[in-house]
Amino acid sequence: MTEIKKSKNCNEVQINGQPCFIPAQRILQLISSKWGIQLINILKGGKRVRYKEIRDLLQKGWKKNKISDATLSSRLGEFVAEGLLEKKIHPESPPRVEYFLTNKGEQLSKALEPLIEWTIKSCHNEQ
Amino acid sequence: MTEIKKSKNCNEVQINGQPCFIPAQRILQLISSKWGIQLINILKGGKRVRYKEIRDLLQKGWKKNKISDATLSSRLGEFVAEGLLEKKIHPESPPRVEYFLTNKGEQLSKALEPLIEWTIKSCHNEQ
Repeated sequence: MTEIKKSKNCNEVQINGQPCFIPAQRILQLISSKWGIQLINILKGGKRVRYKEIRDLLQKGWKKNKISDATLSSRLGEFVAEGLLEKKIHPESPPRVEYFLTNKGEQLSKALEPLIEWTIKSCHNEQ
Repeated sequence: MTEIKKSKNCNEVQINGQPCFIPAQRILQLISSKWGIQLINILKGGKRVRYKEIRDLLQKGWKKNKISDATLSSRLGEFVAEGLLEKKIHPESPPRVEYFLTNKGEQLSKALEPLIEWTIKSCHNEQ
């Protein structure tokens, strides 16, 4: 993944008539990593969800081992770093922490819909 | 990726009201790996392309190091295994080998379009 990360700031949309797919690959790698699609699905449509609720919703659809806080936290951090997710800390006692998709994250969720729909349908049908 | 591969044959489209995204993740991981999106872009729309042409087209849009045959061959093999790509050997001398997208591969390329378009636009604009 090094080359893809390194090229984050490429600004050539085309190279010799070939589109530059490097940012698309970076985003696809992020959403295809563990809990990526599920996070977008839980948060899309302007929902504001607390960390514990996110974990509980993920666990509900995941019959296997317990979800690791380390993996989930690092995924949330990557989404924030990519500008897809925002973390809001409400100064209460104890502080309340909410996550929600940014405009960019909501746009991504819409752009992702046809692919998710097709993939789920196509891959489950073939069994 | 082990868990995702293991679950290839899951047939539960929903688990406790949560959609099963495992096949979607598998496909996304495949297309986000090196040359994945580019292969779909080169072959979409019923094109039949020989191995050498594929490599040359990829190289044209890739200013960096030389494309490794090992990586490209294994990617092509993974696409074939997933039922997205077909490899046709014409019994000539020397044998002519062509690659083309299957119906499933063409469907994937269409489902992928909004995501690719949005990602390229959004990620190049932010520089």
